[in-house]
Parts: sequence; C-alpha cells; structure tokens
Amino acid sequence: MIEVIALDGDDTIWHSEHLFVDTQDRFRELLRPYAELNDAALDERLLEVERRNLPLFGYGVKAFTLSLLETAIEVTDGRIPGRDLQAVLDLGKVLLDHPVELLDGVREAVDALTDDYRVMVLTKGDLLHQETKVARSGLAELFWRVEIVSEKDEATYQRVLDRHDVDPATFVMVGNSVRSDVLPVLGIGGRAVHVPYSVTWALEHVEPDPALHDFPVLRSLTELPACIATLQAES
Amino acid sequence: MIEVIALDGDDTIWHSEHLFVDTQDRFRELLRPYAELNDAALDERLLEVERRNLPLFGYGVKAFTLSLLETAIEVTDGRIPGRDLQAVLDLGKVLLDHPVELLDGVREAVDALTDDYRVMVLTKGDLLHQETKVARSGLAELFWRVEIVSEKDEATYQRVLDRHDVDPATFVMVGNSVRSDVLPVLGIGGRAVHVPYSVTWALEHVEPDPALHDFPVLRSLTELPACIATLQAES
Repeated sequence: MIEVIALDGDDTIWHSEHLFVDTQDRFRELLRPYAELNDAALDERLLEVERRNLPLFGYGVKAFTLSLLETAIEVTDGRIPGRDLQAVLDLGKVLLDHPVELLDGVREAVDALTDDYRVMVLTKGDLLHQETKVARSGLAELFWRVEIVSEKDEATYQRVLDRHDVDPATFVMVGNSVRSDVLPVLGIGGRAVHVPYSVTWALEHVEPDPALHDFPVLRSLTELPACIATLQAES
Repeated sequence: MIEVIALDGDDTIWHSEHLFVDTQDRFRELLRPYAELNDAALDERLLEVERRNLPLFGYGVKAFTLSLLETAIEVTDGRIPGRDLQAVLDLGKVLLDHPVELLDGVREAVDALTDDYRVMVLTKGDLLHQETKVARSGLAELFWRVEIVSEKDEATYQRVLDRHDVDPATFVMVGNSVRSDVLPVLGIGGRAVHVPYSVTWALEHVEPDPALHDFPVLRSLTELPACIATLQAES
C-alpha cells in the first residue's frame, strides 16, 4: 500500500534547468571578447570544472556560480578583469533570486494527492535556495515534510525514510532524474515514477537498462494522480 | 526532565571561526597590491558585502567565498585580474577541505551524555560541508540526529523539535552563539547553555540583557556533563 509520495523540486515541481541553460548563454557572451573557444568547447570546459568541484562544492547555484567564475578565469588564462567576473557572479545572483515557475499540473496533482497520501518534497541543492523555492511555490502548506539533501543516493533515501518512519514498500518517489529520483529508490525497495524534463543536466544523465528496471514514465504531473491510483491498485 | 541535548557544530564541536580569520589575513595580503584600504577598512567592506548577500546566499563557506570575490572586485574598482581572483576562490576551497579539529573535551562530553540522553547536532551553513564535517569529526555514530538548517531562529527550532517529536521543555541547546544557539531556544521554552568561543563573527554578535535571560555559561564542553546534571536536578 502506498502511503507517502515524495516529489523532487528542480524540474519536477518548478522549472530550473532551462534557467541554467539561459545563464550559460549569457556566460558565453560575456567571454566572447576573451576566449577563442567555440560554444561547445566552452560548455565542455565548464562541465569539467563542475565535475571536478562537485565533491567539494556539492549541488546548487552557489556551486555553479563558483564553477562559472573558475571556468572564466581558466579559459582566459587569468586575464579576464574583475569587472567582467562581477557580471558572471551577478548571473548567479539572478538565478538565486529568480521567481519560481511551477510546471504544468503541479498544483492540481499535489492537491489531489494530499487527500489520500502524505506528500513531501525531497530535493537536493543549496539549503536556503531550495527552502526559498518551496516557500515561493505557494504549495508549502500542502507538504507533509520538506527534505533537502546533499546527494540522492540509496543511503540518503534510506536515512530520510528511517527518520520519518516510512517503510520503503509504502513509498513512491517522483522526479525528472533517473539517476537521482528513480534508480536509488528502486534500489532500496521503493517505487519511482519518472517525469522527464525537456533538458537534463549532463551530470544527471544515465541510460537505464529496461531489462533491469521497470518504472512508469509520465509526460507531466497532470498524469500523476491516475498513475498513483494504478500503482495502488496493483499493490 | 531533560531528554534531548543538541550541540551546535562550528566553534562548539569543531574549530571554525579562526579559519575564517586566517583566510581574511590572506585575503588582505592578496589585495595589498591593488587596494589602498587599510586592514580595518577592508574588513569593514567585506562585512558590508556579507551582510548584503546574506538573504540571498545564506551562511557557509560558499557564500563567504562569493562575498570575498565580490569585495575584491569592488575595492579594486573591477581592476583585479582573474588570476588573483582564482587565488581568492582557492582560499574558499581550502576552507571547504580543511581537516576537522575538535574543541577540547568534545569527545568525552558527547560520550558521557549519550549514556543518558539523545544527543544531536543542530548547525547552520552549507549542507554538504556541514555533513562532511560531522563525518570527519569521528563522532557521527554517537549522534541521534544531525540537522543542518539555513537559519537558527525560533521558527526553525520549533520545526526541528516538532519533526523529531521533542517537547521544548525536555530540550537543551548548547552552542557558542547567544544570537543563534541561546536566545531563540529560550524563546520557545527550551533551555540553552552558552560555551563562548575565542572569536565571534561580527554578524553573530549580540549582547543579551542579563535581567531578561538567564543561562549557564561554560568555559568548555568539558564542563557540560556536570552542567546538564545540575539542570536535570533542578527540573
């Protein structure tokens, strides 16, 4: 029996990745006078810096901003002046302060599900920024719990479920990342629903093996209440 | 009756603020060739930038690093080149990766208290960095819970206690900050023990009114088990 449904935040409840894509567009423009790299090469360098910094910085906009700054310094051999790096830093501030835009069908899905289930947010990233986005979503009152974690692996899911006394067999995770929202939850005996977003960050991309993993894939959260009803009927 | 004791992390369990002080020393040296400010004026500018960025960045080393970068750019009128800003960014990385140094008496105090009480960590800052410090402290196994929060105000304490089903009347908070560890806990009907650290960050400094607030002040955590025993006997 399903009792608890957790929703991921970024690109599941609210739009996020397209803001990063827009920011990278502006970042390329800022660097155009200094760097002789083409766009793809610059994106590649940024991704390398993000991957290298991930163990130290973790996820979120502050980590991204520091990696943008480091990339700008690296690809200009340290020549870029401070005033242009302030423009890069300001890109990060714009991201942190951006209004929250809900995805289609989120409010209706959460409203419908809270009649029968405990619905929580389970997201990763900057603590303050994610809390701010939950507050700005206008949905905070509907959520049973909000958990912001530094990584979404099996150990983290197990710890969060233990802390809230939730049996994995009664738990469904819903999110846009197969790597973070689906596979680790299946790994601890929970269920997961994949709702792909139009863009996936390269460091989140995985190709699951359909022979090994079976999970529903929805076009939007509008389909979630019916999907949960089906899962519940099967259990 | 006391049941749950929460310890703050930075400057209560492990050393922290003196690392920030050392970092600011190196920051001043890096800026010496560019800025005509004396040390006090530069510190003042940094504090202004930190205060301004706090609502957007929150607490922690990544926020501090971004504010160091912004200060360096501001006080040099944008003239500082990227290579020197990378040196500033690297100061932040050194802080994030610094070994954890426990304060005197922490291990013994936690060991003694866990015989009779549930002992938790309740700290603010970067999520991943604080988790890493708990892991590196060598004490993780002793803690009942670890809570990392974005702000330590009355609402946050109330939410954390509710989530763990802890009655404030059975709760004692122990930490180095009167502003964050003592006053809000007294405000929700809990008890608090102040263990001052040798340095206090300017944005944490408050002068409590002794006529309004009464709480034990210890020289080190070595004195904590006896202090808790006294509080327990009084309750």
